[in-house]
Order: sequence, then C-alpha cells, then structure tokens
Amino acid sequence: MNGFQHLYIPGPTNVPEPVRQAMNLPMEDMRAPDFPDFVQGLLIDLKKAYRMETGRIFVFPSSGTGAWESAIQNTLQKGDKVLMSRFGQFSLLWVDMAERLGLDVEVIDVEWGKGVPVEDYATRLAADKEHKIKAVFATQNETATGVTSDIEGVRKALDAADHPAMLFVDGVSSIASIEFEMDKWGVDLAVSGSQKGFMLPAGLGILGASKKALAANKALENAGMARCYFSFEDMIKLNDTGYFPYTPATQLLRGLRCSLDMMLETGMESIWARHKRLAEGVRAAVDAWDGCELVARGPDWHSDTVSAIYAPEGVDARDVISTAYYKYQTSLGTGLNKLMGKAFRIGHLGSLNPVMLCGAISAAEMALVDAGAKIEPGSGVAAAQAEFRATTPNVNAPVVKAA
Amino acid sequence: MNGFQHLYIPGPTNVPEPVRQAMNLPMEDMRAPDFPDFVQGLLIDLKKAYRMETGRIFVFPSSGTGAWESAIQNTLQKGDKVLMSRFGQFSLLWVDMAERLGLDVEVIDVEWGKGVPVEDYATRLAADKEHKIKAVFATQNETATGVTSDIEGVRKALDAADHPAMLFVDGVSSIASIEFEMDKWGVDLAVSGSQKGFMLPAGLGILGASKKALAANKALENAGMARCYFSFEDMIKLNDTGYFPYTPATQLLRGLRCSLDMMLETGMESIWARHKRLAEGVRAAVDAWDGCELVARGPDWHSDTVSAIYAPEGVDARDVISTAYYKYQTSLGTGLNKLMGKAFRIGHLGSLNPVMLCGAISAAEMALVDAGAKIEPGSGVAAAQAEFRATTPNVNAPVVKAA
Amino acid sequence: MNGFQHLYIPGPTNVPEPVRQAMNLPMEDMRAPDFPDFVQGLLIDLKKAYRMETGRIFVFPSSGTGAWESAIQNTLQKGDKVLMSRFGQFSLLWVDMAERLGLDVEVIDVEWGKGVPVEDYATRLAADKEHKIKAVFATQNETATGVTSDIEGVRKALDAADHPAMLFVDGVSSIASIEFEMDKWGVDLAVSGSQKGFMLPAGLGILGASKKALAANKALENAGMARCYFSFEDMIKLNDTGYFPYTPATQLLRGLRCSLDMMLETGMESIWARHKRLAEGVRAAVDAWDGCELVARGPDWHSDTVSAIYAPEGVDARDVISTAYYKYQTSLGTGLNKLMGKAFRIGHLGSLNPVMLCGAISAAEMALVDAGAKIEPGSGVAAAQAEFRATTPNVNAPVVKAA
Amino acid sequence: MNGFQHLYIPGPTNVPEPVRQAMNLPMEDMRAPDFPDFVQGLLIDLKKAYRMETGRIFVFPSSGTGAWESAIQNTLQKGDKVLMSRFGQFSLLWVDMAERLGLDVEVIDVEWGKGVPVEDYATRLAADKEHKIKAVFATQNETATGVTSDIEGVRKALDAADHPAMLFVDGVSSIASIEFEMDKWGVDLAVSGSQKGFMLPAGLGILGASKKALAANKALENAGMARCYFSFEDMIKLNDTGYFPYTPATQLLRGLRCSLDMMLETGMESIWARHKRLAEGVRAAVDAWDGCELVARGPDWHSDTVSAIYAPEGVDARDVISTAYYKYQTSLGTGLNKLMGKAFRIGHLGSLNPVMLCGAISAAEMALVDAGAKIEPGSGVAAAQAEFRATTPNVNAPVVKAA
Repeated sequence: MNGFQHLYIPGPTNVPEPVRQAMNLPMEDMRAPDFPDFVQGLLIDLKKAYRMETGRIFVFPSSGTGAWESAIQNTLQKGDKVLMSRFGQFSLLWVDMAERLGLDVEVIDVEWGKGVPVEDYATRLAADKEHKIKAVFATQNETATGVTSDIEGVRKALDAADHPAMLFVDGVSSIASIEFEMDKWGVDLAVSGSQKGFMLPAGLGILGASKKALAANKALENAGMARCYFSFEDMIKLNDTGYFPYTPATQLLRGLRCSLDMMLETGMESIWARHKRLAEGVRAAVDAWDGCELVARGPDWHSDTVSAIYAPEGVDARDVISTAYYKYQTSLGTGLNKLMGKAFRIGHLGSLNPVMLCGAISAAEMALVDAGAKIEPGSGVAAAQAEFRATTPNVNAPVVKAA
Repeated sequence: MNGFQHLYIPGPTNVPEPVRQAMNLPMEDMRAPDFPDFVQGLLIDLKKAYRMETGRIFVFPSSGTGAWESAIQNTLQKGDKVLMSRFGQFSLLWVDMAERLGLDVEVIDVEWGKGVPVEDYATRLAADKEHKIKAVFATQNETATGVTSDIEGVRKALDAADHPAMLFVDGVSSIASIEFEMDKWGVDLAVSGSQKGFMLPAGLGILGASKKALAANKALENAGMARCYFSFEDMIKLNDTGYFPYTPATQLLRGLRCSLDMMLETGMESIWARHKRLAEGVRAAVDAWDGCELVARGPDWHSDTVSAIYAPEGVDARDVISTAYYKYQTSLGTGLNKLMGKAFRIGHLGSLNPVMLCGAISAAEMALVDAGAKIEPGSGVAAAQAEFRATTPNVNAPVVKAA
Repeated sequence: MNGFQHLYIPGPTNVPEPVRQAMNLPMEDMRAPDFPDFVQGLLIDLKKAYRMETGRIFVFPSSGTGAWESAIQNTLQKGDKVLMSRFGQFSLLWVDMAERLGLDVEVIDVEWGKGVPVEDYATRLAADKEHKIKAVFATQNETATGVTSDIEGVRKALDAADHPAMLFVDGVSSIASIEFEMDKWGVDLAVSGSQKGFMLPAGLGILGASKKALAANKALENAGMARCYFSFEDMIKLNDTGYFPYTPATQLLRGLRCSLDMMLETGMESIWARHKRLAEGVRAAVDAWDGCELVARGPDWHSDTVSAIYAPEGVDARDVISTAYYKYQTSLGTGLNKLMGKAFRIGHLGSLNPVMLCGAISAAEMALVDAGAKIEPGSGVAAAQAEFRATTPNVNAPVVKAA
Repeated sequence: MNGFQHLYIPGPTNVPEPVRQAMNLPMEDMRAPDFPDFVQGLLIDLKKAYRMETGRIFVFPSSGTGAWESAIQNTLQKGDKVLMSRFGQFSLLWVDMAERLGLDVEVIDVEWGKGVPVEDYATRLAADKEHKIKAVFATQNETATGVTSDIEGVRKALDAADHPAMLFVDGVSSIASIEFEMDKWGVDLAVSGSQKGFMLPAGLGILGASKKALAANKALENAGMARCYFSFEDMIKLNDTGYFPYTPATQLLRGLRCSLDMMLETGMESIWARHKRLAEGVRAAVDAWDGCELVARGPDWHSDTVSAIYAPEGVDARDVISTAYYKYQTSLGTGLNKLMGKAFRIGHLGSLNPVMLCGAISAAEMALVDAGAKIEPGSGVAAAQAEFRATTPNVNAPVVKAA
C-alpha cells in the first residue's frame, strides 16, 4: 500500500495494461485446430517489427540468450572463424558463448563506452581475401554501457569488402525500440527477447533469420553443431503447420499478439521517435548533474533505450542503486562487471512516458544526493522537463478555455 | 504503450497490486454456507479502521453519497433540525441532500478555504437549550478545497454545551488516510467509500454507526423516513446471519479484505503519518511555485489527502488540467463549482510514495508552464524532493558499501 | 488446487474471460475530458439490450434492489395505488418495498409455481374506471421459483382496458437472457442488475425508463417521495454531460462495455435462443430424475434462466445443496422462504455452455443420491446430453476426416 | 459469452485461481537485492516436490524439452552408450534427441500401451559387465499412451546388477501429480515442466539433478558437449548467489511460488491420492463405453494423469476430438503418431475435481455419439459418478439438517 514499485532497468520493462489484461487468461490447447491461424498471424506480424519480408522469425520459450545460442548452433560449425567485438558485459558474454560453442573467435576489444569498431571491421574484412570469416557479430545496443552501434555501417563494411560473411546482430535491447532494419541492413541473424521493446515478461527468445541464414542452416543438414531444442529444422517443420515442436508459452504468445497489435498500429518509426525523445530527456538530466556523466563516449554512441551513468567521484554507485531501491522503491540498473560501483543505469525503453521518467530521474536524484553526490537537487528533473515540454506531442488536446 | 496513465485525483485512488490481484477472481455464491465467516470477519476489521469498538459498520453497494443518505434516512425524521456548514462542493451537496430529504437545515456558510466553524457551532449549540438540533454535521475533509476540519473540536463543543445531538461526519476522503477516531471523538455516523483511503474501485458506501445512532434508528421503528435499500433494519437483520439483504458486490468485498489486511498490518497511525509526510512534500512544491497558493487558508486547514491549488493570476486552471491530461497522461483534480478555472487539485491519498508524487508534481509543473505560469521549472519537484529525502523512512536499507 | 469452484446459482453468474480481463485495470478519472464519450456510448448501447429506442437507461452503483427503489421513488407518490402480484421470494420483497415506501398496494397472491395472473390483472384494470391504479408491477422472472411471466400479456391487459397505469417490470433475472422488449411491450420501468444476464459482478443497478416514466418523474418536480441518491433528476442532469452525480463504479462500467460488445455482436435473439436450449437440457434432466419436479407448474411458466427443483419426498433439499457445495465444490441455489428444505435451484443464465451444465447436473445428481434420493445415477445427465446433442450448433466444425 | 472453454489435455493444465492471481503482476527487477531470498526459497521448496534432499533443482526458461536437453548435455559425452525404451510419442522423441545429441542409444522398442521393460533393462544391465552403459533412461509417464512405468523397478534392476549408470527419468507428466521419489528411487536426472502438475502456464523447464549427476557434470569440466544456455555450470554459479545467468521468467516464478505453497501445504501424498481417485473415475467411464478401451494394456500401466482411449471400431478419433472442440468447446488430447485417428486422450492432472471431470466425460461422450459410436449415452458419466461419490472426501461438510 506504499504505492507502486518503479522499474527503470533496461528490461524487463513495464508491461502495458492491455498486454497485462491479455495475459490474464486460462490455459489453452496448443494443438487446437484453430491454433495455427493464431501462430501464423503472429509470425507474419513479428516480421513487420523486424522490418523483414523474407526469411523467418523463430520464437523459442527461452531468454534472449537462448536465441543467441540458436543463431550460432544452426548456421555455423565448430571451428568456424567469426569476427566479434567486446565493449560491455553483454558483448563479453556473447563472445564467451561463441568460444564455448567452439567457434574460432577473433575478438576486438574496445574501450567500454564505445561500440562496434566499424572501421576495424572494414579493415579486417577487406584483408580476409579467403573469406575465412564466416560471420561478423555486432551488438547493436550494449545494455551494460548504454552504447548503440552502427549496424548499417557494418553492412557497408561487408559490402565494401564484397565479403560473404553472415551478419549476426544482438538486438535484445534495441529491436522494437530503436531503429532496426533487418532487410535494408542485410542482417542475417537478429536476436531479441520478449522483455524489452516487446513490453512483455521475460520468457521468449525471438530470432530473425534471413534467407541466407536459412540456406546456411540447410547446407549443414545433419552436420554442424549438435542441436535439438533450439534447432531450426524442428521449428520450421512444425511452424509450417502452425504448431510448435514442444509446448509453447501460450500466455506470452497471447501477450505478444496484443503488444504487436499496439506496435504495428502505432508504427515502428513512431516508436523509435518516442524512444529518442524520452532518452533526450534523461540525457538532459545527466548533463545537469554535476560530476555525473554518461558512460557512452559521445553522442554517436548514445543509446535511446538505456543510459549508463557514472556516479560522481567519491560516490559509490551501489549506494545510489540501493538507496533508490530501499528508500524510494525504484529499481535502477546496476553497474555490471567493471562498472560495478562506478555506474548506475536508467532503462528508458518500452512502455514509458515523460511523467514516468520525471519520477525515475527524481528517484535517481534523491538517491544520488543521499549517497553524497554534490548535485543540485531538482536540476536533473528540471532539465528533463524542459526537454519533455518541448518535444512531447500534444495529443488531441482540445484545450478548454475560460468563457 | 505510451506508459501508464497517472492518477492524482482525490479518489478513486491507485489500487495496490495485491488488491488488484485479489479482485481478479471468478464470481462466488453470496449465500454459500461459509460466506458468513468471511462477512463477519470483514465487518469486525472495518471497525478497527474506524477506531470503534461498539456500534456497527454498514457496507452498501453504492457510492459514499449512498452512505450519506443512509445515515440521514435511518436516524432522523422529516423536519428535524440539523446544524451544518458549507465551504466547498461536497459540504454543499450534503446540505442539498439534507434539505431534499426534508430536514430543517441551519446552514453556516464559511469562506471556501476554511472548514467547520467550531466556535460558531459551540455558540449555537450552547444557545439551543431546548435541544431542537437533532444532529450536527461536519465534513472532516472537504475534497473540493483541500481543507481538513477539527472533528474532535466539534465533539468538545457538543460536550461543552452538554448537547445530545448526534454527530455526523463525512469522512469520505479522510477515513483510513488521516486521523479519525470514531469512539474517542464520539462520532455517531461516519461516512466513507471504497475508492479513497481503502484503495479500491468505487462501489462501496461504508457507514459507521455508534450505539447512539443505532438506538435512534431503533426508536424510529417503522416511522421516520421511507427507506428500504439503505435501511439499517434490513441490513442488521441479514448481517447478523453473515449475509446481506440483496446481492453484495463480492468482488469489492474480496478486495476490501485484502486492503484491510494490509492496513491493519501496517497500523492506522503509520498510515496517517505516511499521508502527512507525502502531503508535506506536495505543499513544499506549491510553496515553491511563484503565484500559486493553496486554497486552504493556513496550516490549520491543510488537508493531508488533497491539495487544492490556485493557479497563478492569468492562468486558467482548466488549461493546466487539460494539458496535464492530454499531453502528460496525468489526471489532476478539477476546480469544482466556484473554483472552476481558478484552482486545480492534486490528490495524495491512498497507495502512494514519494517517487509517484515527484511524477505528479512534475506533471503539474510542466502543465503550469505550458499554460503560461511564470513558475521556475523544477522548483516544485526540487522542494518536494528535499522534503521526501528528509522524511522518507529508509526501509530495511542494508546499504552496500564498496570493498 | 482442487480445481475450479462451480457456480450454478441464478446470479451472480459466470464472468466471461474477456470481461474479466477488461476489469483487470487501474483506476481512472471519472471526470476526465474523454470520459463522456465512453459513458454516452455505453448508455446508448444498453438501450439496445433493453430493446428501447426512446426513454433512458439509468445505471446506479447499487444492486438491482436499488433500481427497484429508484423506479418507485421517482415516478410515484406516497399513497398511490398500485397493482402487484406475489408468487415467490422476489415478488414478495418487491411488494414489501412498495408498502414500506408508502404505496397503497393491491396484492394478488398466487400459488408459488405460477406467475403474474394476467387475467386477474385484466379484470381489475377493466374495473378501475377511475384509473386509481397508477402502476402495475410484474416480475418477469421469479428467481425463487423459476417462473417466467407473460409481460406482453400484461401490456395487452392494460391496452384492452385502455388503462394509463405505468407498467413496472422486474427483469433482474430475465433481461439480457430471455426475451424482453421494452418498447414493443410498452414497459415503463424495467429493472435489472449487472450480475445476471450482463455477466458481471454485482454492483450495478440498471433501470430502463420509458418516455412516459420520465414524464411522470418530471410531473412530480420537487414533490413526490424524498429521493437523492436514486433520483432521476440528478442522474439526468449529469448523464447529459457524460458524467455522473457521484463517483461511478468505473471498473464495472468497463466490464459492462466489454459484455455489451459481446452481446450486441452476438445479437439478443441469439442469446435468448441459447438460454432456451440450455434450459431445455436442464429440464430434461429434472424430468429424468425420479421424484424430482420443477416448482414451475407447467411449461407456460418455465424459466429459461433458472430451474427451481423439488427434491424427492423425504429428501431435505438443504442436504443436496450442502453436499454439492462441500463435497462437489458446486454452488446450487437455495430454496428461499417457503421452499427452504423443499427445493434447490440450478441457475442457467449468463455465460454458459452444455458441458458446463453437464457438470452442474452431475453435481446435483451426485448430491441428490448422497442425500438419499432414489434417482437413477446418470439419468439426468444422459437426458441433458441428448437434448444438447440435438440442439447445440456445430460451430465452424471443419470435421477432420481420416485419409 | 458462450461459457468457459474446457481443457482436458494432458498439459497445459488448468491454472488454479490463486496462481492466476499471483501471475497478474507488474514486472520486477531480477537483480534486486532481495531477489535472492525469493529464488533460494523457491529452489529449496521445489526439492520437496521432487522428494530430494541433496542435489539441485535447475529452472530454465524453456519447455520440458529444454530440460531433457540440459540433462544430457551436462552429464554425458558424445558417443556415450545409453539404454532407452520407446513406446509412445514422447519416449520416441527423447530417443531422437539422444541420438541427435550424439549418444550411442540402445533402444528397446515396446508395444505402445506398455511401458519401460524393466526385466529387459535388468537383463541388459546385468550383461553389461564393463559398464559401457552410462545412463538408463525411463519415461515415467508416457503422455501419448497414458502409460505409467515402474521407476522404482528400474532402480532395483540397476542395483541388482550393481551397475553405476545414471538413471534419467522423464517426469514431465508425472512429477507433482503421481508418486515420484527422487532420493528413494535413486533418480539422477528428473525432468519436468511448469505446465503439468505444477499447474502453471508453459515456460519453465525444471530439472532435478542428484549429487551423482552433479559430480558427472563436474567431471566433464570444459569437455563434454558444447553447452551454454542449458549449462549447469553457469546456472550453479549464479543460483548460488540467488540470481540467474540470464533474465528469468519472473512471472512464472511468482506463479510457481504460489502453486508450490499450495502443493506443500496439501502434501504430496495427498496430491497423488487425489490424482488416483480422479483417474479411477475416468477409467470407470471408459469401461462403461461399449467398444472403447484404454490404450494402456492393463492396470499395471494405467496412468493417473492421462488416459489414452481407443475410439470404437469404425469411429475416427479425430472426429471425436474435432466435435468436442468445435461443438462442445472442449479440448481433448489428440492421438499422436500411430495413434492418430485411433485414440483420443483425456488429461486428468493438475487442478481438477470430480464435477470438472463429469463435464469432460460428458463432452467426450456426446462427441463419441455424434461421431457414430454406439455407446450408451450417459453410461460413462454415470460410472464416473459412482466412483466419485464413493471416493470424494466430504470436506468440512457440516450437513444442514431439517429442523
């Protein structure tokens, strides 16, 4: 009865009320004769959110990590050389997975706060005349540092080198929130999950696969990595009939139907624009806080879905997070790995609006001050308000005038 | 998907998640053999929230207005003289009802912004040697103006005059939020509703009746005002068996069970203290806004559940409310009756916390500026933050320290 | 975890899943600028369920009993003569209310098991040359006995006598379930509630008023019975602006929007037909049970929403009900008033289907046998199945054939 | 509004109302400082449902199939010899997975309708003097045929041969419903999922691992099968801190907390007994249907969670299923693989009671007759009723007696 908990982590995100309603339901028969209509409509509409017209979408009962694994297992072989870069906890974990699954990973380590080194990629791809590199991996949005990378640039690097490597993208905290163009950018495997831009609870790993990726899978036939749960083959065979190879998470699928309907009605461009507006407000707040700064090293890297923020010198970011949680009922994102104690994060993706973020910024502000930061109280929220006042569309406002 | 709507009207209030869960249920048989256990436990616990040990609580499927009507119909007769005061839209409506139900109402009009004129009451009661006044009515919290009155003072005035009149209290927006003491203050009829401090949807009118009020009802027997739906007799007869004279709103009763459990576990004193802390934050914000001021004429009248705020000279409060609603997805309370266009209200009762109110204050602030107010952006939320930082209990905080 | 409770009382009824989802929502501002659009659309559509094109629908936060009271208070005066009939607990209570509200009631007592004595009504109306009878009351569906009366017949009696009395109908357990025609039958005041055919929780009293009833109300002006909470005047004034005179039960109104959408899409005729089909199944079961019989004295009186069933000689119906509840998790309707111990009831209105009723009939059957009835186990459900097999529409059935 | 859909497939099962309420919640921070308390309590209590005191439980965001995969990947190596048996669609799929993951599978094919060939296992284990068999797999409950196998018997066979092979059990449709004893039976890896006996939506793969299985995993170190998403190592490392290696499905975990609370309060033995009672009712119905018979070849194989039923000669089981679904709004289980068209299934596990099953049996009965079966209508439900009347505990029944 002490009010709502506030959730401003970069996923799971806040579930919109219609989606919550849609998931308040009894169980159903996933082998019902009319289930395929539902499934096939869903898979078609998911492609719209991914901006793809060919290829396929796979939906696994898993987290996004499962979809990462599926992408690798189904299209690559042990020993295949791949090009990756590492600049935060999630790109780091992806490299770790790739190595554990047996790939020969060429890793480029980048300063945390920057993202995919497109020029380096270009150089290495151009040098790989023999096309030993089978795939190039790019984390579109590094959730740990709040850094967005230039996927279109990676595509251009591949094209410039006339290189046939597949392009793998981790879009877990970007797809459905910030611009992502599967077809236009020539992405081959694009991973996301239910609990970010799709505004659902965690539990679905979503994977887009291009025709080229599907062909790579087919070429493997029964060779390649051992795979079963995440195998494309089984999923394709059953999805083509409108069913799944094992019991799907129908509650989440019904929720996804609802969130997709909302998203497609709104339009992806409009969603991306909203995320940008909201992110600008958060960044204005950070700018206003003396001694704080974004982990992202400059506007080119700014993420519109999450801001990782260095606490001022002498302030332990863990105190900020803990105070926000225990005293102000607000979940902020922790500083992961080498950012632990140094940075905290504000997630600003999914179903959000300016007043929610004024609350989040206020929580961070109060917690910062409590933790010893010498910021001017209210400075952040004032800066954010100015941004929001200037950019928030004045929906339908038939302003009532005095007689 | 544009985030949650923000509700800061003085009721309905925000429903806590456990209460919402408790109301997500199938229908049930209100004549089931084990239903009485549930009903009787509920009625006993409601008395704890009212701070009464004798007398009875009635729960009607109605709004608080229905409970007003019940109080009058069941204990007074046409032509009975009653003493009332009028200083806002709700005390005004109560007078209107009393007149329409045939009472002989002696009304004292008070400047809006002040409340029950205790001294006037004392004078008139002392002068009423023949005890023609059968009841004294007092609106504990005038929701339209954000004014809280001194009920204990009214009791003292009655006692000082040794006057037997019954004491009627409208506690719709006070009971379960700010201090209310049925027994200690000698209140005879106390009205509330489900959608305020009880943190439920609207739909239950709740009425506390003292032994004296019940005796007055009994004395009427079949005489008195015509009554059926709201009659004490029918309700007493059936409640004594654990049932109701007509189909009760079981969904709300189950929600009430949950909210009462939360309230009684927390303790009423703790709830009242929380409302005071939150209200102080809102008042600090209003103080910080140039040209704004509370409708309540001084601290004695300040309400801890709702603040009515005059917009600055030249700013139409309706623009503020409309902008908050359409642009910032935030519901603020309107200016009612003679306050229309002049004032807006922030409801701060029920399930709330500081970060929610920082959002509410930010919404009001942005809407004020958009509507032309020359306030300093961020000034209100900064002032509120200072208050909240100083007064919010640091729940369980095992602050994590750097190694 | 012992499965679902089974609810087969004649209201509250089972809430359809979409309605339940629609009520799983946060609170909202009942003075929001766009609330009127919602309210006015709802009031218009409710008229479609009532089959009325003129007049008005009132929706009170109350039970159906409140709507009864409103109908009387707003259109009649103390001492007005009215013609009523009494043949079950609910018609009995209605007479009681009319008397307590001061009407001069001419009551015709009818054997329980039969309904409105249309011929008697005709005789008395014809004899009332001076038109002293101001209103004729008819309980369309007596929920206690499972008896449906001929409202159109009452209209004809009025017309035959060229009598101007208003026609009041209690349609609480009939409207939205079995045929009801406000305009065609010339009904002036028709009462229902949310928890029956409208498939919602209890909490809304719904009242249809014809133009003639509204004119009667207007003619009273400030005279007539004291009224406030249930007054037409206040409700009309506010409803005309799209609002309510006091806080409405928005959760239920949102649920009502959903159930009305379902109802109007299906079509009222189709809903009535479904209730008939389901009722026939229950009656077939009763016929099959040795020693049991319907309280309704013949097919003309059969109710399609509830069956009251005499337990066999020597069997206490309370044992049947108690065993069904405690052993079989099934709520059956109790025998009310003089039927206590003699009869139990199966409610078969609202959101139901044949398999649900096979469960209900099985529960009754098992409980009957346990209570000592010498019925053939399974006989009732077998008879019902035969009925259901013959009459259930085979929805969309693309029957799969073996290759 | 045509009533509830009826779900009698062998999973997903019907979700109890309290569990449904518990899942109606906003998202939360899976890295919150108090999250570990929740997680660790859950993992401890899950062990009680598995009847294990040592070892570990793993909970993956996946289906049960994922837990199958995890069991194999983490404890065996490519080329390892394992002993399996195949007698239905699910044991068949498990063999398929084992082969695809590179195991050297010795499969014993058994007539569908029987289960694990314990004597054959004993023979082969005794013959395997060199202990080439690394693991023995047993499907405790073959969901496709409704056959339960003797896991304790397999244990005895292992012990008799003094064989060190690990014992893998597929308990997806048995654990938490019928007797399962992890420790007592010396099971090493036991797979289940959320959507069966745990009464939740699909989405969690649950895996119990004995100390021996964990030691086998440890012995593999970084060798063994490539694994990441389902790896024990990552899960152990994070679970030991109270967190997960990737975003867990918190909505389901909160639901699981609720269902586990219900289960442990009731007691596992009581749950098993209830499943047996309900299953006996269904089997009585099948016995009563002329021409129908269970796929399970005799009482030793009868499953208490699902009955697979041969349709009578000349009746296509698909017609039965399709008619039940489209005409009677009831989902029955399909005949899988070689049972397609020949058998249908009634799932009777999870949250169920006799009246629900009377409905399910009635649906099947009506659909059978519609599909041309010459069974006596009502015969099945009558037989089931007799069983249920005799065995249902008369909970709390303070039977009301006539005065």
